[in-house]
Amino acid sequence: MIVDSHAHVVMPSELYQYMGELIASRANPAGKFSGVSGESIDEVASRLISVMDGVGTDIQFLSPRPYMMLHSLKPARVGAMWTRAVNDVICAKCKLYPNRFRGVAGLPQFRNDSPKNCLDELERCVSELGFVGCLLNPDPSEGEESAPPGLGDPFWYPLYEKLVELDVPALVHSSSCCNPRESYTLKFINEESIAIISLLESAVFRDFPSLKIVISHGGGAIPYQMGRFRAWAERRGGASFDEQIRRLYFDTCNYSADALEFQLRVLGVDNCLFGTERPGTGTIHCRDTSRDFDDLRPAIEAIDWLSADDRYKIFEGNCRKVYSRAFSR
Amino acid sequence: MIVDSHAHVVMPSELYQYMGELIASRANPAGKFSGVSGESIDEVASRLISVMDGVGTDIQFLSPRPYMMLHSLKPARVGAMWTRAVNDVICAKCKLYPNRFRGVAGLPQFRNDSPKNCLDELERCVSELGFVGCLLNPDPSEGEESAPPGLGDPFWYPLYEKLVELDVPALVHSSSCCNPRESYTLKFINEESIAIISLLESAVFRDFPSLKIVISHGGGAIPYQMGRFRAWAERRGGASFDEQIRRLYFDTCNYSADALEFQLRVLGVDNCLFGTERPGTGTIHCRDTSRDFDDLRPAIEAIDWLSADDRYKIFEGNCRKVYSRAFSR
Amino acid sequence: MIVDSHAHVVMPSELYQYMGELIASRANPAGKFSGVSGESIDEVASRLISVMDGVGTDIQFLSPRPYMMLHSLKPARVGAMWTRAVNDVICAKCKLYPNRFRGVAGLPQFRNDSPKNCLDELERCVSELGFVGCLLNPDPSEGEESAPPGLGDPFWYPLYEKLVELDVPALVHSSSCCNPRESYTLKFINEESIAIISLLESAVFRDFPSLKIVISHGGGAIPYQMGRFRAWAERRGGASFDEQIRRLYFDTCNYSADALEFQLRVLGVDNCLFGTERPGTGTIHCRDTSRDFDDLRPAIEAIDWLSADDRYKIFEGNCRKVYSRAFSR
Amino acid sequence: MIVDSHAHVVMPSELYQYMGELIASRANPAGKFSGVSGESIDEVASRLISVMDGVGTDIQFLSPRPYMMLHSLKPARVGAMWTRAVNDVICAKCKLYPNRFRGVAGLPQFRNDSPKNCLDELERCVSELGFVGCLLNPDPSEGEESAPPGLGDPFWYPLYEKLVELDVPALVHSSSCCNPRESYTLKFINEESIAIISLLESAVFRDFPSLKIVISHGGGAIPYQMGRFRAWAERRGGASFDEQIRRLYFDTCNYSADALEFQLRVLGVDNCLFGTERPGTGTIHCRDTSRDFDDLRPAIEAIDWLSADDRYKIFEGNCRKVYSRAFSR
Amino acid sequence: MIVDSHAHVVMPSELYQYMGELIASRANPAGKFSGVSGESIDEVASRLISVMDGVGTDIQFLSPRPYMMLHSLKPARVGAMWTRAVNDVICAKCKLYPNRFRGVAGLPQFRNDSPKNCLDELERCVSELGFVGCLLNPDPSEGEESAPPGLGDPFWYPLYEKLVELDVPALVHSSSCCNPRESYTLKFINEESIAIISLLESAVFRDFPSLKIVISHGGGAIPYQMGRFRAWAERRGGASFDEQIRRLYFDTCNYSADALEFQLRVLGVDNCLFGTERPGTGTIHCRDTSRDFDDLRPAIEAIDWLSADDRYKIFEGNCRKVYSRAFSR
Amino acid sequence: MIVDSHAHVVMPSELYQYMGELIASRANPAGKFSGVSGESIDEVASRLISVMDGVGTDIQFLSPRPYMMLHSLKPARVGAMWTRAVNDVICAKCKLYPNRFRGVAGLPQFRNDSPKNCLDELERCVSELGFVGCLLNPDPSEGEESAPPGLGDPFWYPLYEKLVELDVPALVHSSSCCNPRESYTLKFINEESIAIISLLESAVFRDFPSLKIVISHGGGAIPYQMGRFRAWAERRGGASFDEQIRRLYFDTCNYSADALEFQLRVLGVDNCLFGTERPGTGTIHCRDTSRDFDDLRPAIEAIDWLSADDRYKIFEGNCRKVYSRAFSR
Repeated sequence: MIVDSHAHVVMPSELYQYMGELIASRANPAGKFSGVSGESIDEVASRLISVMDGVGTDIQFLSPRPYMMLHSLKPARVGAMWTRAVNDVICAKCKLYPNRFRGVAGLPQFRNDSPKNCLDELERCVSELGFVGCLLNPDPSEGEESAPPGLGDPFWYPLYEKLVELDVPALVHSSSCCNPRESYTLKFINEESIAIISLLESAVFRDFPSLKIVISHGGGAIPYQMGRFRAWAERRGGASFDEQIRRLYFDTCNYSADALEFQLRVLGVDNCLFGTERPGTGTIHCRDTSRDFDDLRPAIEAIDWLSADDRYKIFEGNCRKVYSRAFSR
Repeated sequence: MIVDSHAHVVMPSELYQYMGELIASRANPAGKFSGVSGESIDEVASRLISVMDGVGTDIQFLSPRPYMMLHSLKPARVGAMWTRAVNDVICAKCKLYPNRFRGVAGLPQFRNDSPKNCLDELERCVSELGFVGCLLNPDPSEGEESAPPGLGDPFWYPLYEKLVELDVPALVHSSSCCNPRESYTLKFINEESIAIISLLESAVFRDFPSLKIVISHGGGAIPYQMGRFRAWAERRGGASFDEQIRRLYFDTCNYSADALEFQLRVLGVDNCLFGTERPGTGTIHCRDTSRDFDDLRPAIEAIDWLSADDRYKIFEGNCRKVYSRAFSR
Repeated sequence: MIVDSHAHVVMPSELYQYMGELIASRANPAGKFSGVSGESIDEVASRLISVMDGVGTDIQFLSPRPYMMLHSLKPARVGAMWTRAVNDVICAKCKLYPNRFRGVAGLPQFRNDSPKNCLDELERCVSELGFVGCLLNPDPSEGEESAPPGLGDPFWYPLYEKLVELDVPALVHSSSCCNPRESYTLKFINEESIAIISLLESAVFRDFPSLKIVISHGGGAIPYQMGRFRAWAERRGGASFDEQIRRLYFDTCNYSADALEFQLRVLGVDNCLFGTERPGTGTIHCRDTSRDFDDLRPAIEAIDWLSADDRYKIFEGNCRKVYSRAFSR
Repeated sequence: MIVDSHAHVVMPSELYQYMGELIASRANPAGKFSGVSGESIDEVASRLISVMDGVGTDIQFLSPRPYMMLHSLKPARVGAMWTRAVNDVICAKCKLYPNRFRGVAGLPQFRNDSPKNCLDELERCVSELGFVGCLLNPDPSEGEESAPPGLGDPFWYPLYEKLVELDVPALVHSSSCCNPRESYTLKFINEESIAIISLLESAVFRDFPSLKIVISHGGGAIPYQMGRFRAWAERRGGASFDEQIRRLYFDTCNYSADALEFQLRVLGVDNCLFGTERPGTGTIHCRDTSRDFDDLRPAIEAIDWLSADDRYKIFEGNCRKVYSRAFSR
Repeated sequence: MIVDSHAHVVMPSELYQYMGELIASRANPAGKFSGVSGESIDEVASRLISVMDGVGTDIQFLSPRPYMMLHSLKPARVGAMWTRAVNDVICAKCKLYPNRFRGVAGLPQFRNDSPKNCLDELERCVSELGFVGCLLNPDPSEGEESAPPGLGDPFWYPLYEKLVELDVPALVHSSSCCNPRESYTLKFINEESIAIISLLESAVFRDFPSLKIVISHGGGAIPYQMGRFRAWAERRGGASFDEQIRRLYFDTCNYSADALEFQLRVLGVDNCLFGTERPGTGTIHCRDTSRDFDDLRPAIEAIDWLSADDRYKIFEGNCRKVYSRAFSR
Repeated sequence: MIVDSHAHVVMPSELYQYMGELIASRANPAGKFSGVSGESIDEVASRLISVMDGVGTDIQFLSPRPYMMLHSLKPARVGAMWTRAVNDVICAKCKLYPNRFRGVAGLPQFRNDSPKNCLDELERCVSELGFVGCLLNPDPSEGEESAPPGLGDPFWYPLYEKLVELDVPALVHSSSCCNPRESYTLKFINEESIAIISLLESAVFRDFPSLKIVISHGGGAIPYQMGRFRAWAERRGGASFDEQIRRLYFDTCNYSADALEFQLRVLGVDNCLFGTERPGTGTIHCRDTSRDFDDLRPAIEAIDWLSADDRYKIFEGNCRKVYSRAFSR
């Protein structure tokens, strides 16, 4: 079975219109989302399923499109209402095709407010809607003002407590970027590097031994810059950096075949989950491979040193371990 | 002929999608608007024309939906690209039905930046696209930070120079409101009151004798609070407030029949232009009249003291005078 | 009996001198107010009484001059000491002529601080000095920084609790305006519109069923823009806007006779209290009427459709209902 | 002849009322000062002259009361109008008693704006009204925000150029203080210390060899802390601190007899001008001397080591030198 | 015995290197201080002792160099680690030469944070390391942002409670100054003046009757400006300023002989403690005395009106009284 | 010949002491750097040369230690004086051992000020001191406030003009990081990624065809995330990302052998310059290789697919091409 643990919702036009109205009015007043018709959902979902069939994906984990999560838009009510609407649309798809989709919730994070404001929506998504995990944006200020503390800081503990309580993982994924210095796609990468180092230098995994964190896009810059952080850890004493980094999970959403091979070598097959971020930056034809950049299954299957068991872990096994609620029904 | 001088564009779904992508990415990178298909435009326009026919409107002046102008959204590039896209859609409608529509341009105002950044787009809309006026938002900060100076301040002179040069009027109309104290629809009213007083207490009309300014929604609070401003003017000496206010134009977009009658009495028939703000806040059924609140023609026609000439002025004549480019072809 | 429920204190010169010293020193150190001599009080009060006699007012409710309340002046101690001094002068007048004056307290509001800091002074004024109500400024930041939340927000609940406990109404009246975009007299109007909408869209009257709120100056822009808010309420469902607005009281401080007539028609005679804001903006000769703008009794008496009972309500009855402590002795 | 070079205007009640109205309205709108009646001026001036006669002062130099200069009050227009009004009142007194008064102008300084905005008023006061100098406030932000650069900075050069051009001195004197850490009277002292050091460590007197600067209140802390600054100068090389400080003038407004004697010893009789700051902090009875604290003539006359020529310099001669326009008529 | 109650640590080069690394990295990560070798400590201490012997000082109280305390450097962790390191070096010197040195602790104050964060380090220094007092910086924002409230404010009470509990005095001494308007050496003086007035106008000594506060550098400007504050106190009523000021202690660190004599006359011999601030601003040769400016013993011994008992108090007795833990072993 | 193009100065203790004094005083006053003795320089340089000999390096390019450049420390004068002092020490080393060292200048960048303030020091270093390049910090705000625009922005053009005029390259290298979210060593990596994308998406190389830019540390995250940026470039059309990135140079300062091999494969041997960042994060023993992490020569020599010419380019040839002034004497 091929499980794509990192995919994003395709939005029907009703959702775009609601987004526009909500932002334009600043939720002032806040019109409730009137929902999407069954046909719209079905049409969008069917199109998606035929793409999945084309690349051989059995199950996709759907989360909100990260760059559209509006975490920095004032006032907070805009993002709160928007998040709820998007999660509802994801839920509708999952309900329609329960064998092909799982929901990964967006959280109504807001700038550098405490993540406490996200616990209700997370609870709702997991307990009521059957979602199996959530996105976690390390910088909901979206580069517009000072970001909250790094993920290693107790600032985030209320969320970690809830994640552990619900036994769901968080997929670290930043959202948009208001600062022209960094496009959102590059900010993804930088925020992942920051998240990894902040978590590994902290007491988070000591304080939450059962917490599960997945880092998107193959871990930002860290696998490539391992030497630097190995040296840094050496200076600080204690566990080696290679030991430490095994505490985290990573997805395979790295659109170059040799980098993906490099990633699996450095991070190990036990910690990497198949994920493509479809639809996303990589959903475009690559001249070299004649496939879309984000059609990553062939690249993994082409790595000759991977055993069948390794492949099973990457495509399915690790995902079952991390997203324990996804396959429990 | 019934000319509705204050109406807003109905947006096809492609425009909502573009809006969402533009805001979400913060124009970083800034994808160009790929435009709207001819069928989409035609479908939306046809629907609109049948509504116009239903209420007896011959010509509508289409401007962007004010609360969706995104004037405070950072960075400025978002609003600049968005304004251009919306103006292009308005232009497409006008080109398709040149006998039924005229374009009133949105300006890419940005927070408290000088309006100099709007001159190119205004020039483009009027000289290249054939638009006949523009919206002017007195608070493009949309209540999020300190607003620019009042419309009476030399801050606005670069725009006034261009308006005079092009011989087009500005329709004063605020956009959204980020502050939950004020909904955007209430901010419209308050900003109009501020605009009137700021302009009348300034040297603007002395410095720009041929400048034409139209105030939306019947002039905010001022007609109702005339006594207060008459007394105020009395204290300051000079022209009476009633004389001063004749320097401005107003539309009739006041959704209560008796208030509309009151307005025409106070402001005079020579200064009021028919306008309904359709589609907008008033596009909803009124139990009392069994018409939509913004179906204002019957309310005007019911005022017994209006002569035929008065009605002509309100429905057509004043508009021809103010929007001189609208009927020149 | 003619009761002018909205009048402001005339300040003896000692009070101006204290004001100047207090502001100049920023209450640093804070010299205590040494009070006003009996003769000064008497002289100012006698002058006022002869004016009242001239226009036929029996009783005036005296409150601080709103634009002189100094709510935004830093540090808070300036306004606190100033408010106390002004309330003391009002009290001295009421004590001297108990048949002609009632006290309406100023509150030491400060920028966007919680109104909790006002409870002691309100308690002192009502319980110790015998005041019958208070002013409530919806924007004590006076336009210099971000205002506190709208009056519908729980931010104001501590004050509402105290008002209900003491059974006194609040007269909504903003103070000065630091921003040249808006003169204070125009800000009065805009803040009243904001206050009305914020209160009516909130849970305030559900949470405080016995709370009494009076809106100054005939309700800002709202009566004139009723159509807009009727339509808005229609969209939101629930009670009609006309029903909702009956929950509030208004004074008649609208300096134009036809607007006043319009107001009474729209808001109803049961909700309007006679009030003139003397001395204030309208205390100046009107060429048309040959009376001061704020000499409003003749304008009301000239409305032919008002019954004797209607007039009684407006001039006295509604005031007795709302200001229940004012006539209880 | 006894010339008191540092005295402040006593304000008639009309001026306090204007001050109150101006501040309360934030000059929005800005009512013009209607002036003070001749009797008011005469009454206040006569009272002052009898006090002068009582202590033997022949001529007083009148400047605005420093703590009432409103330099930090927003918007700038308040202070601009206020300064002009106070200067006009000073002028009226000087015109009435040309043998007893000279005018020292207040400047409309505003927070950390460039002093360029003061040049017109300085020019007006000196060239039109016959004033002989001006106050210079080194921190017109009055402690509310970051102060402008020290007096040694080129920031102040536009003012220095004008002072030199008009051949009038500036009397360094801060105004109020918004920060409860420092009362205004203590801020006077601290700002004088800062002014001295900033000027002496700068190129100001090299760039403006004919500039004349007088420091109020005996030079703040510096004479008492001379050792520290002598050592500091020693480290930096160049002229000794004692040589440097001779470039400045000081007044004798130091309310303790032994400190005054100490001052004259440290700073030298050639650089000190008689000044009392009346009316001010020291205008109160001193138990020890049975005179007001600011009755300083006896204290100076009691210093046995002062020669008659020394006394002439202090009481008159230095003042003639520094305020060259004061005695030129 | 000659006890110099105000002297600062001479730093070995290891400490400079640690300082550089700590600041440069912003304690991010925060390398622990690896300490200074015994030889380094001994070398620096020996050099210091020979200087002490040269001027006849028996015991020096060593505190951190004030202008190097880094109280405003962000983040707070830098100053916290730095303070601890410096205190440790001071402790090492005291341990090495227990007959010649006593430790006066630096506190990890940070901008306008509550002094609560200093209590642990103060406790550690006094209870574990045997220190006898601490420095207290009234403006740890170092002029970069708004300072905390004056020392008379309850803001400081947590620290005062701890000082009283431990029975140690605080030596008021500001640190560096980020604002070019004021050099740190001048800010010392100004902050002392502010501290004195703030404390004397407050309830601090009523609330903490056994609190002991020493003001550095002879009390800033206050002794020289006593007349002003005597008049000020007279206005406020209550105890005379001369009585009030006896509640404080002062050191003799005033580098001019006549000012020192003036100080002792004004403040009295019972409240002044010998202190030189060595090494500091005054550690430079004075041409007039042929000694360093801060070699103050001869200046005191030269004052002819001081009795032997007076001298004992200044050089030793007052210090024993104030620093009760310093001589208790 | 082995040329290490990326090495940092080892600082003698005099420099640390100067750094401490400069920061602590905030250059207020600004003591001039008194320089370092010849012996100190020689001692430090000799130690360094023996290390170079140990690893076989012939020539090192010395620049300031990046994390100690103090670019965000206020006021700007601190960094300006510090930069000059460090460059002078580098120059002294180069003068002493002209066959072993070359100077790469630090620039006195300051927060988000224009780089215009750096041109004089760059000119001085290159033209007077014989330096061969400079460091360029893309975020001199050091994470404390909003960074300047990305390196692709015209903001940087004044510097690029000077670099082209002098024909020297800039080595992109961020400095410290004030924000605990990111250690400085991780910020290096993230800033490099941002710099690459900002430059490649800009017009910089079109506007400055001869500009030479070297990116430190193997290019941050970009080589590892090439797929993402290839897809991104594909969407935007135009040159492929692989073509674009050839416009930049990179050093080999990547402390893991397999990542280094990966880098050379992805970026190509023509664009990579040998560089080790010694002394720096990697100067610590690696258990696996039994060499320091930053002893990179053996790792390069072990790559079997590199030809002799490839190695020549990496170790010497590319450096000669880029740093054209380094070998011209």
